[in-house]
Amino acid sequence: MSPKLQHATRFLDAGTVAALFARKGVANCIAGLADYIRDDFQRWDAFDKTARVAAHSPHGVIELMPVADRALYAFKYVNGHPGNHRHGLSTVMAFGVLAEVETGWPLLLSELTLTTALRTAAMSALAAGLLARPGCRRMAVIGNGAQSEFQALAFHRLLGVTQFHLYDTDPAATAKLLANLARLGLSARAFGSTREAVRGCDIVSTITADKTRATILTPDMIEPGMHINAVGGDCPGKTELHPEVLRRADVFVEYEPQTRCEGEIQQMPADFPVTELWRILADETLGRQGAADVTIFDSVGFALEDFSALRYLRDVAAELEVDAGISLIPDLPDPKNLFGYIPAVAGLARAA
Amino acid sequence: MSPKLQHATRFLDAGTVAALFARKGVANCIAGLADYIRDDFQRWDAFDKTARVAAHSPHGVIELMPVADRALYAFKYVNGHPGNHRHGLSTVMAFGVLAEVETGWPLLLSELTLTTALRTAAMSALAAGLLARPGCRRMAVIGNGAQSEFQALAFHRLLGVTQFHLYDTDPAATAKLLANLARLGLSARAFGSTREAVRGCDIVSTITADKTRATILTPDMIEPGMHINAVGGDCPGKTELHPEVLRRADVFVEYEPQTRCEGEIQQMPADFPVTELWRILADETLGRQGAADVTIFDSVGFALEDFSALRYLRDVAAELEVDAGISLIPDLPDPKNLFGYIPAVAGLARAA
Repeated sequence: MSPKLQHATRFLDAGTVAALFARKGVANCIAGLADYIRDDFQRWDAFDKTARVAAHSPHGVIELMPVADRALYAFKYVNGHPGNHRHGLSTVMAFGVLAEVETGWPLLLSELTLTTALRTAAMSALAAGLLARPGCRRMAVIGNGAQSEFQALAFHRLLGVTQFHLYDTDPAATAKLLANLARLGLSARAFGSTREAVRGCDIVSTITADKTRATILTPDMIEPGMHINAVGGDCPGKTELHPEVLRRADVFVEYEPQTRCEGEIQQMPADFPVTELWRILADETLGRQGAADVTIFDSVGFALEDFSALRYLRDVAAELEVDAGISLIPDLPDPKNLFGYIPAVAGLARAA
Repeated sequence: MSPKLQHATRFLDAGTVAALFARKGVANCIAGLADYIRDDFQRWDAFDKTARVAAHSPHGVIELMPVADRALYAFKYVNGHPGNHRHGLSTVMAFGVLAEVETGWPLLLSELTLTTALRTAAMSALAAGLLARPGCRRMAVIGNGAQSEFQALAFHRLLGVTQFHLYDTDPAATAKLLANLARLGLSARAFGSTREAVRGCDIVSTITADKTRATILTPDMIEPGMHINAVGGDCPGKTELHPEVLRRADVFVEYEPQTRCEGEIQQMPADFPVTELWRILADETLGRQGAADVTIFDSVGFALEDFSALRYLRDVAAELEVDAGISLIPDLPDPKNLFGYIPAVAGLARAA
């Protein structure tokens, strides 16, 4: 470890992480994150897992997402406030910490707003790699907001998708996404409705933000063989798929106890059958079984993906020698003398 | 708000908070924290409360402690690893965040290791003010580690305690505490055992760190009228008082659901009667009822105290114009264009 960081917590702020992603290449980072996520999901039983702790309010939710194995502990703070654009703020903002289990020492504090967009896209593409038909080339992107470029990049890089069909209720968001995809050299086309956008697509990604029981996709829009990457519905009261779409498909989830409350399946009875993705990675079960099947990844975002992301960031920062640190924890010559950390000059005279 | 902080999260590192406490005076800060805690406990029903989320491991525990009212959300990360001195680290290390409920925006990130010691002491003194007999002058301090100076200062400042009787299994810790109390002008004496230290004391504070079912205090040590400030036992498997001490006393707690698992009362049946302190502040119930009663504050540490502490830190930092900020969240001209935050130079060419 860099000597500079021996008594400091490594700190990656928003600009530093953005520069780090630019330096390595965003698609390369998405691929790297997918590898780290795959590795951690394959060690599923090694983790102490819990549904995230949510504080709901009229305009949104704030969540804490902890998870740990025997060596490392991680948590993410994340909010979801669909109306935040009115305040000039992002719908989703996040940061997190990686710590040592043996001592509680915080190793790394990092921005996770940008990183969440990459790790969500990596997880979506990882899941689609297990669930979609081989040879997918065309994906619908319903919801063209902050997450959308990352999803498109992930599916291009990891699945070979080359054509993107876009729709959003906000034409400015669609224009923004079209421009960004053009700069990336990716082929995309805007449509006038969800129905028109999804027609003929191998994969449909729904990435909308309304905290409501929406029906972005209805059963008549679904074609045999489709894989649905349902990203936007991710908390109680927030869904995108008509229940009949779920009934007619094979549904896959991250951590079932959490997805039962937060995912599309919140609309279904508690015993509606779903499969946790780790089982496919552990070769316990198949993903897609037939070419005409409809598969759904009911994505909500699970803490293990942020654990993987924080590990990835720590490793990349160390590799690139990005060693900024902060003094989050007092550095005490005698750990039992915390009082001695307070400067003596003014403090003692007024201490009592 | 300082213009510098409009798109940054206010950041108070360990050294900054220590300097801030020195500038205002540690005892003054403890008194200020007690006021903020009292104000928030008097609004008990306004808060969305939950027991803290703990990740246990062989050597300790890491916890997240969220709480929110309609306007503000706070959480603290804190560990408890009694063996940490062997690694040159503190048993208890902490940091936390205060955020806006309406948007999820993180207003403040702060060290909370030092602050926790002050807020724990403030809470202990606040509770004792409601529970101990009037006119207390003599307090036993069992456990002379990192928390002890702050406890002594709090009881001196808020209750008028003038004599401290010390004991610890580690003589070096006692020597450290004696030296610090002498510098503060507080009268203290070391004893050879817990039994000898508590004899004749009005208040007994137990502040030990072993993650075990200890019996620091046994029934024969308890004198009529004593108030016991039981701080050290604060997680499952970690207690300091013999069960009979609890049975013979009136026991008061912070947030009952959490204390049932973590406090001294974990040793008792689930229906063992206890009173939440807020009820005394709301005039719903009395604290101490008779001069010969034995009262116990079964302290574990509740998230609301950290909410109060973060509010206090934010207000004091603003008052003293300590306006350092960090860029934890990307500042986006268009909140839907998160992708645009990544520097274009290298990123795009390699993005796809």
